[in-house]
Amino acid sequence: MYTLNENYLKLPGSYLFSGIAKKVAAYQKAHPDADIIRLGIGDVTQPLCKAVIDELHKAVDEMASADTFKGYAPDLGYEFLRHAMAENDYRNNGCDIADDEIFISDGAKSDSANIQEIFGQDVKLAVCDPVYPVYVDSNVMAGRCGDYDEKTGMWSNVIYMPCTAENGFAPELPTETPDLIYLCFPNNPTGEVITRDELQKWVDYANKVGAIIIYDAAYEAYITDPSIPHSIYECKGARTCAIELRSFSKNAGFTGLRLGATIIPHDIVVAKTAIGKENVELHSLWARRHGTKYNGAPYIVQRAGLACYSEEGKAQIKEQVATYMKNAKYIKNGLKEAGYTVYGGENSPYVWLKTPDNMTSWEFFDMLLEKANVVGTPGSGFGPSGEHYFRLTAFGSYENSVRAIERIKNM
Amino acid sequence: MYTLNENYLKLPGSYLFSGIAKKVAAYQKAHPDADIIRLGIGDVTQPLCKAVIDELHKAVDEMASADTFKGYAPDLGYEFLRHAMAENDYRNNGCDIADDEIFISDGAKSDSANIQEIFGQDVKLAVCDPVYPVYVDSNVMAGRCGDYDEKTGMWSNVIYMPCTAENGFAPELPTETPDLIYLCFPNNPTGEVITRDELQKWVDYANKVGAIIIYDAAYEAYITDPSIPHSIYECKGARTCAIELRSFSKNAGFTGLRLGATIIPHDIVVAKTAIGKENVELHSLWARRHGTKYNGAPYIVQRAGLACYSEEGKAQIKEQVATYMKNAKYIKNGLKEAGYTVYGGENSPYVWLKTPDNMTSWEFFDMLLEKANVVGTPGSGFGPSGEHYFRLTAFGSYENSVRAIERIKNM
Repeated sequence: MYTLNENYLKLPGSYLFSGIAKKVAAYQKAHPDADIIRLGIGDVTQPLCKAVIDELHKAVDEMASADTFKGYAPDLGYEFLRHAMAENDYRNNGCDIADDEIFISDGAKSDSANIQEIFGQDVKLAVCDPVYPVYVDSNVMAGRCGDYDEKTGMWSNVIYMPCTAENGFAPELPTETPDLIYLCFPNNPTGEVITRDELQKWVDYANKVGAIIIYDAAYEAYITDPSIPHSIYECKGARTCAIELRSFSKNAGFTGLRLGATIIPHDIVVAKTAIGKENVELHSLWARRHGTKYNGAPYIVQRAGLACYSEEGKAQIKEQVATYMKNAKYIKNGLKEAGYTVYGGENSPYVWLKTPDNMTSWEFFDMLLEKANVVGTPGSGFGPSGEHYFRLTAFGSYENSVRAIERIKNM
Repeated sequence: MYTLNENYLKLPGSYLFSGIAKKVAAYQKAHPDADIIRLGIGDVTQPLCKAVIDELHKAVDEMASADTFKGYAPDLGYEFLRHAMAENDYRNNGCDIADDEIFISDGAKSDSANIQEIFGQDVKLAVCDPVYPVYVDSNVMAGRCGDYDEKTGMWSNVIYMPCTAENGFAPELPTETPDLIYLCFPNNPTGEVITRDELQKWVDYANKVGAIIIYDAAYEAYITDPSIPHSIYECKGARTCAIELRSFSKNAGFTGLRLGATIIPHDIVVAKTAIGKENVELHSLWARRHGTKYNGAPYIVQRAGLACYSEEGKAQIKEQVATYMKNAKYIKNGLKEAGYTVYGGENSPYVWLKTPDNMTSWEFFDMLLEKANVVGTPGSGFGPSGEHYFRLTAFGSYENSVRAIERIKNM
């Protein structure tokens, strides 16, 4: 008789955003006339820029002719895109990354969930708290996190690094030594950032204790402050300890198009593995995973990715990001005027607020939905230290950002 | 210090098709003028049909306007596509499958590799031998297959069901009871099929012993004989024991577009799990996996999938499949005329030949590459019982199929 992966059954409730979607759908059903403004899930709303649309049409036309038709993509991604990323996102910014250290994928969500598969069953993870739920949930599914404590909202075998107003939302080096350290900056959900010097400390620490940093840089396009690193490879020594995740979702609006990348330098090497293999590159394991469990991102989508690196593409994307940042500024200032304590929103599309009157995150969610018809994301959904916080995103339209703040002020 | 998933290091050599690609690239480099005909990897060569191209352009245009732009897709797939599949592929053919039992994905390769994740660590798999390598490799990576024996080419903890000329390429019910049974019909690589009555025996067996059948129906569009089932749900009782994998790659030429689906009926239920949860639907685990480790297939690609079910789309796809089947017939007959013993190719795009003079599959691969500049796939790459066999695909152009046979005849 077959058995199930019982680790799945340990997961509490449903995945955060599916849960919110269900709640909103129920409210909408009960109030069909309610004009709900969604600033919850981090989904973009602006259309794809012209350079991307033009390239998509061209690539689609290529698929219509036998001479230019493309079948299976190279497992690890088309050279043209790996090269463009390595050049534009890394080498032009002083980061030493080779084309073949870039693995193209269908998005940073999949990569951040799948990356744990290439590590041993016994690795211990450290995560910021609050944190994007996928890091922990994917490890729970793999059976690494021990048991869930309903009271604390914590897993018994995970190292939580609280990031709250008290420590400026900056995680401190953990006292217990982790094997995998998930860092995301600009941070989801707090919208806060890490300086280059601070990040260097983490790289030095990882190299010292023999840990791997999984650095989620999905929001780097929103950085405005030059002292904030766009990539972990701006730090010395990162090539021996850091994996970086990149996404086209938030900079170029590819949430519905699906494109991302994982960077694994060849310098991450295990000198001798448990079964005695020598000098094994982490790179080779991820390549094997890609080749066996994945079949490449669609050609037309990879071409769309390439368009993001053209001169027009870069300019158009920059403009989109600026529009969202205008929203972020408006939301942050509006909330301040309404008397809220607010964080993030300056190098990030996320605004992170303290709930008023010590309300729980979900109480505030319900109030906001019912009284203002505005959807946000409860901070507690990102981990226990997110309790009494709440996330709003700048990914709506400017008009909706203004209307949402209006309603919140009148609430 | 972090550790690696050492199961990866147990895998011999590289993934079959990556290995072939390297060998061909090396040959091409050494012989830049060689006009190589590729009938190896099962990749299509005909352009996408007009209905699909038109729909792609329309969907791309929607992504260019804020009013019609689509961000994150529903985790489990757009309703329009799930409905079209359920209606056209199942309900219209007398199979009782609900829309929400269909999970849209980026292809049957990913699904066939990922599906094992929702099962217990201790499940034992049974596979046809030869078989598509992903079924076993993905389970090796998960640590379920024991150790690899270089001599036999077999894993110590896998039940192999030989499919050779001796038993008409039909697997027999295994003597040892498996938990997961991977079946693929029309078969990759042998090109042979299973009758409805034979498949019914497997469904009855699975229900009797408490096993799950993972039924890979990626090639169903090539079935011409009405006694051959297109879906396992044509069998009585399949709703309680069978998962089916579907692909848009081989019928509609989506290898470069990436679209597939997994069907999990709500009736597959575990009455009581090891940790005591009651009435757990397998469906709920896969939904959770999709929601956590995946973010949906691109909207434009799902729209392209929808176009396959329009009247024009159906007709155009049928024509494409017929063209490939014309190649299959030509290749099969040509090989017969050249004195080869040949199988498959009648309800399948794959032709499976016995190597001459007891050559090994790789010896024949080398000879074919060097003497005829034709690339095929060594049968032994699909498992030990594939040794002394060789796969050619009908996915080339008719012209290339003719030229390949010409060259083989003159070899």
